[in-house]
Amino acid sequence: MKIAIMGYGTIGSGVAAVVERNAESIAKRVGEPVEVKYVLDLREFPGDPIQEKVIHDVDILVNDPEVSIVVETMGGVEPACTFVKKALAAGKSVTTSNKALVAKKGTELLDLAKENHVSFLFEASVGGGIPIIRPLNQCLTADEIVEITGILNGTTNYMLTKMDKEGMTFDAVLKEAQEKGYAEKDPTADIEGFDACRKIAILSSLAYGSQVDFEDIYTEGITKITDTDFKYARKMGTSIKLFGTSRRDGDKFHAMVAPVMIDASHPLYAVNDVFNGIMVEGNMVDKLMFYGRGAGSLPTASAVVADVVEMAKNPGKTLVQSWSTKKLPLADKGTWERKFFVRVAGGAEKKAQVEAAFGPVTYIEIEGLSEFAFVTPVMTEAAYEEKAAKVEGVLSMIRMDV
Amino acid sequence: MKIAIMGYGTIGSGVAAVVERNAESIAKRVGEPVEVKYVLDLREFPGDPIQEKVIHDVDILVNDPEVSIVVETMGGVEPACTFVKKALAAGKSVTTSNKALVAKKGTELLDLAKENHVSFLFEASVGGGIPIIRPLNQCLTADEIVEITGILNGTTNYMLTKMDKEGMTFDAVLKEAQEKGYAEKDPTADIEGFDACRKIAILSSLAYGSQVDFEDIYTEGITKITDTDFKYARKMGTSIKLFGTSRRDGDKFHAMVAPVMIDASHPLYAVNDVFNGIMVEGNMVDKLMFYGRGAGSLPTASAVVADVVEMAKNPGKTLVQSWSTKKLPLADKGTWERKFFVRVAGGAEKKAQVEAAFGPVTYIEIEGLSEFAFVTPVMTEAAYEEKAAKVEGVLSMIRMDV
Repeated sequence: MKIAIMGYGTIGSGVAAVVERNAESIAKRVGEPVEVKYVLDLREFPGDPIQEKVIHDVDILVNDPEVSIVVETMGGVEPACTFVKKALAAGKSVTTSNKALVAKKGTELLDLAKENHVSFLFEASVGGGIPIIRPLNQCLTADEIVEITGILNGTTNYMLTKMDKEGMTFDAVLKEAQEKGYAEKDPTADIEGFDACRKIAILSSLAYGSQVDFEDIYTEGITKITDTDFKYARKMGTSIKLFGTSRRDGDKFHAMVAPVMIDASHPLYAVNDVFNGIMVEGNMVDKLMFYGRGAGSLPTASAVVADVVEMAKNPGKTLVQSWSTKKLPLADKGTWERKFFVRVAGGAEKKAQVEAAFGPVTYIEIEGLSEFAFVTPVMTEAAYEEKAAKVEGVLSMIRMDV
Repeated sequence: MKIAIMGYGTIGSGVAAVVERNAESIAKRVGEPVEVKYVLDLREFPGDPIQEKVIHDVDILVNDPEVSIVVETMGGVEPACTFVKKALAAGKSVTTSNKALVAKKGTELLDLAKENHVSFLFEASVGGGIPIIRPLNQCLTADEIVEITGILNGTTNYMLTKMDKEGMTFDAVLKEAQEKGYAEKDPTADIEGFDACRKIAILSSLAYGSQVDFEDIYTEGITKITDTDFKYARKMGTSIKLFGTSRRDGDKFHAMVAPVMIDASHPLYAVNDVFNGIMVEGNMVDKLMFYGRGAGSLPTASAVVADVVEMAKNPGKTLVQSWSTKKLPLADKGTWERKFFVRVAGGAEKKAQVEAAFGPVTYIEIEGLSEFAFVTPVMTEAAYEEKAAKVEGVLSMIRMDV
């Protein structure tokens, strides 16, 4: 069984390492040895064990009938999409770790795979090494999914954990994350929530069986979260996490990426540092949680190679993903009900305004601050916005799931 | 697609409910409706929607060619084993939630299924609704499993959580658990660790690909854990959980059921109350954790029906479980290395004895007690036992994973 790897970066080189190190157990599962025949990359890798396998022209692997499975670990939509299409059209199954590609072109590539009687899998595109795509497709088949909520971005979870446990400011923790290599030089995709948005779009498409466009998902990053928010959170016994979340509410579907305040009873409360956690609620099984390393060379490659093993065991078969081309319309974010944590500048004199707008609320005060905070009753986001507009000096709002 | 349910108790009735309530989504996944044709039970169920389907003779379902899948939710080894064998021999696939049956007869039943070109699945036998068997078989295929450690028994986890958070004594919490229906009148199987033992035997057989006999696993329950142990634990920032655990250490395999002291950095630390959590460590993916409801009618039935769906989609095919008939020899428990938490009667005068035996240790003292505790360095269990024998008045020992 010969495979080709497109893109020899962090994950692509991890795939080569996993195939090499666990060769024996993988061969046992597949029924024959799995071997990397080509590595497609713009660069050369002198001294690397795969140096003889490097090619620069995608058509070499596309036109080689010996290659039956292609691994795409280049990242980005193009040229990855063009290359994947070529491979599928040539009758090769493809697995990818590329969430941008799956979120943008998933439906099209799944259709193309079906037409060509091959498979298109993407376990590693969400949650790194955590099995989540396959559990949604193959394990939770007796359930209707009610909610899926994940801590899907390790960089921002590391930053929020540091702010929580060590009281660091946003700017200081971002600098530290960049120094440690956890955050990119340009951290926009992580801290603005764009990465989590693509991942929750993929999970939601699978969970509800219809295509969720990531462009439709309201997305808010962590750039407005401050060390002061965590002072309140600690006093309240809560923490703040960046959630990618979607929920079925009767016939309506909600989806959002935003920081959410949770307490210790939430299954994702203990997911700290660079780890990812994904909570899935089914109408029969109740709440499940999957936890592990959401990034990293070998963990992510482990998920890619699990796809390779499954495709190798099912030649000529299109492995079904529960994702239809029908587009899933999302409900307006104004209709989602929850509590809200709100900070207001000023002192006791403002509370009459707060209560006039919101009715009885729970206050949280921290000595030495010229502001206070309160928690609203459960209400729609539209109702919250209408009421908050009547209070002067609202500093910030964080959605709650407690 | 017609199925038969053997045993209409908590789980069997849950299976009927899941098949009924999620009929539409299940039919979509299977490609045709799934219908319960028979319910085998000694009792009648007048007024129940399935009352017309009740049969008392297993041969009726065995000899009905319309029934292609049988669900076994009777519990216990016999007559479940005889009935499952009849069904398999008649060319019907079987799924079971019965850990006693799988732990005792799993190898034999898997072989019989293979001979008859049908499947024998048991997702619900471990971890209730948590997908763990299927992830081990189908998701972690690129990894070699290094360790599998689970909180596998909800009853004892509920009891230990209450002792931890509310300072209750063992006897008081057992009584409360019995009153709430979480513990049986005869709680032996739970509190002595026998239930967890069967479950870790099943998981280990799958994780390491060879049959692990539950009789070979050293098993210690929670009956010796006291409220005083938790006083020390709270002071140390740790908790005590009943772990079913097995670990690959080079060519050696360890397995054990015992209370273990862990701190907040352990993935299972936040698994509280009746919930189950299973940590799996692969040599590539590192540590994963699966969390959810380990018992209960609908969650467990959800796992059973997921097996039904997979078998219905693969008629005439034996779905492979990575479990060979080769028996896995377990290493002597004396060779397992770790730290130990030890309580000793007496005061400062004993410390010279402790240090003579163990060298420098960490002491933990609680005001008002005529005893103290210490934590040993990492050593084998054999070394611990040899050294502990040199200290007079050792009250208790708890293994640590910190």
